[in-house]
Amino acid sequence: MFTIKRSIAPLTSSIFKRNMITAQAVLYTEHGEPSDVLFTQKFSIDDDNLKSDQVVVKTLASPVNPSDINQIQGVYPSKPEKTLEFGTEKPAAPCGNEGVFQVLKVGNGVSDLAVGDWVIPSEVNFGTWRTHALGTSSDFIKLPNPEQSKANGKKQGLSINQAATISVNPLTAYLMLTHYVKLIPGKDWFIQNGGNSAVGKYASQVGKLLNFNSISVIRDRPNLDEVKKELQELGATQVITEEDNASKEFGGQIKSWVKETGGEVKLALNCVGGKSSSGIARKLNANGLMLTYGGMSKQPVTIPTSLYIFKNFTSAGFWVTELLKKNHDLKLKTLNQVVEWYENGELKDAPSTHIEFDGNDLAKLYQQGVDDSKKGKQLITYSSR
Amino acid sequence: MFTIKRSIAPLTSSIFKRNMITAQAVLYTEHGEPSDVLFTQKFSIDDDNLKSDQVVVKTLASPVNPSDINQIQGVYPSKPEKTLEFGTEKPAAPCGNEGVFQVLKVGNGVSDLAVGDWVIPSEVNFGTWRTHALGTSSDFIKLPNPEQSKANGKKQGLSINQAATISVNPLTAYLMLTHYVKLIPGKDWFIQNGGNSAVGKYASQVGKLLNFNSISVIRDRPNLDEVKKELQELGATQVITEEDNASKEFGGQIKSWVKETGGEVKLALNCVGGKSSSGIARKLNANGLMLTYGGMSKQPVTIPTSLYIFKNFTSAGFWVTELLKKNHDLKLKTLNQVVEWYENGELKDAPSTHIEFDGNDLAKLYQQGVDDSKKGKQLITYSSR
Repeated sequence: MFTIKRSIAPLTSSIFKRNMITAQAVLYTEHGEPSDVLFTQKFSIDDDNLKSDQVVVKTLASPVNPSDINQIQGVYPSKPEKTLEFGTEKPAAPCGNEGVFQVLKVGNGVSDLAVGDWVIPSEVNFGTWRTHALGTSSDFIKLPNPEQSKANGKKQGLSINQAATISVNPLTAYLMLTHYVKLIPGKDWFIQNGGNSAVGKYASQVGKLLNFNSISVIRDRPNLDEVKKELQELGATQVITEEDNASKEFGGQIKSWVKETGGEVKLALNCVGGKSSSGIARKLNANGLMLTYGGMSKQPVTIPTSLYIFKNFTSAGFWVTELLKKNHDLKLKTLNQVVEWYENGELKDAPSTHIEFDGNDLAKLYQQGVDDSKKGKQLITYSSR
Repeated sequence: MFTIKRSIAPLTSSIFKRNMITAQAVLYTEHGEPSDVLFTQKFSIDDDNLKSDQVVVKTLASPVNPSDINQIQGVYPSKPEKTLEFGTEKPAAPCGNEGVFQVLKVGNGVSDLAVGDWVIPSEVNFGTWRTHALGTSSDFIKLPNPEQSKANGKKQGLSINQAATISVNPLTAYLMLTHYVKLIPGKDWFIQNGGNSAVGKYASQVGKLLNFNSISVIRDRPNLDEVKKELQELGATQVITEEDNASKEFGGQIKSWVKETGGEVKLALNCVGGKSSSGIARKLNANGLMLTYGGMSKQPVTIPTSLYIFKNFTSAGFWVTELLKKNHDLKLKTLNQVVEWYENGELKDAPSTHIEFDGNDLAKLYQQGVDDSKKGKQLITYSSR
């Protein structure tokens, strides 16, 4: 028998003990396409012999994010460490970065978490594609569970989907709008491309909640008017097409909108790149900032030299993982704000397709999520346990 | 007779007075190609009736800068105001932004300037393509003239060329290297394209004076080794070609240079754009900054999305005019440093071709400078007066 870190025992040892939790996690030992490299590892958690700071949780739900897939492929700069703690012969890395768990049991020194609490991982790379986890209390951040929200007199509790997908997209939208440029409520504007993306919709909503004016750029489409209406109902002040964004003449229209509020276009959010990024950059007033957080067009960010020199334009990047790694307090503060909006029914989450865990092979289940992820966000749920 | 601002009288009135200075300035009333719109305006300066804060200067030299030409064409965002003070029938704007003058006479309230002092304009758009000027003492910044440098025990005085071209290129190089990123002397690096340009050569020299390591990117050319040697003698730590800059393999060579000094590549200076700009941006360590101050390739600044998101790269602009407009103290401090280096013989100025004023039509003389400006910097000198 080898020494087991963090009280996790490989399944082979569990037959000699009672009351252990039999858990599963999705792992990989080498990078590659998920269908080639993912496997299910069963392991045991000895929940009868917890150290004082330890916490056992069961998974309620975890999504399949594009960055999770890129991580498995080895093309994402943030990577989980490979470990032997799941009882594999070769070091293996766990998959998944977002997810919500429920506390099953706590060590006798844990005072900030209790059985039944909902928690999310404090950090990325924790591994959320699994049925259970054993950690210490500092591995988790507590969210209110629906009973707690109700007891606190809130309008509603968080849904499983809201809790499982709170760490990336809503925080990205909120932090891009608040952490860099001080927009004056009621006056100033931001402009974003990818207005119909998940982050784009959060940004429109957060913008409205903070009383910032916004212009969302979307691609032309057969049901353009319908999508425009939906985004405006969410909170976008104006919705324009990429053709409008590319047109020099349209600049005058934007100027007149901005003039009406007496503000400036101070911030651009770019998740597209290429011509779309130069289009939104051109709409900024002098001294504007563009934050790039994605590159859906696969084209580089292309900016006319004159914007830099004569309009003092600045182009920077945004990566929620890196920003919050250095700033735990900011993460807590931001989460609290998003939770409050969810509890007040003021913020709509991005919908996801739920795939329910049926007790069978976990890697196959997440592989289905990977395969279907082009159709929309896939959320693996464990609600029937 | 109309009221004359700042004691400048149109020449028509000077025949009734004695001792007035007969001056010439190059003006334009409408934007266009210099050969189409420039004209010489003669005017008088009544130096016998100065107000207490007034100063009369004669021009020693003024260069033809690309931005001067763009200003006349109407394609430069900083523009002189059109005025009637030169005695034109229609409002006209003066040309030229850099230049050195010598003080001829001061009003009785002027204590910071004396006859014989060398001065440069405090601000841009003063109009330096002229034989004389009347201003107030706050219109000028004093530089030491050669006699003053000698009296102060300096190794040498400023040359006419150094004084006439001190405001743009040397300040641009110094401020880009010092005002944004704190490079650790002896350890850190900057990388620049256009390494053989005037600003590029100043940056290599200033870098060496401040003990910053540097990589200068230049285009391949028949006498590559000769130019490399020249730039290294000026102060560039390494000189590479655009082909090296574009090659992914070459990144390893740069990493090994940087490893030797124990520092990072923290700053990139871009005056080219296009692929050259993405090449130098890629060489930066995480959290690096690129300052764009020119766009010689006429291509936009093109940066891969991943640099922004995963390397926290920031791309900003630099325009000496705008930066120093808001910060007079910074301008004085920077000028003092550059003057000190010139007086110590530690900084080489960019050479220029001198065109001597012969007393004939001034606009024609500057037009010759405009025509010849593609061959190198042209400096109009007035030394024989």
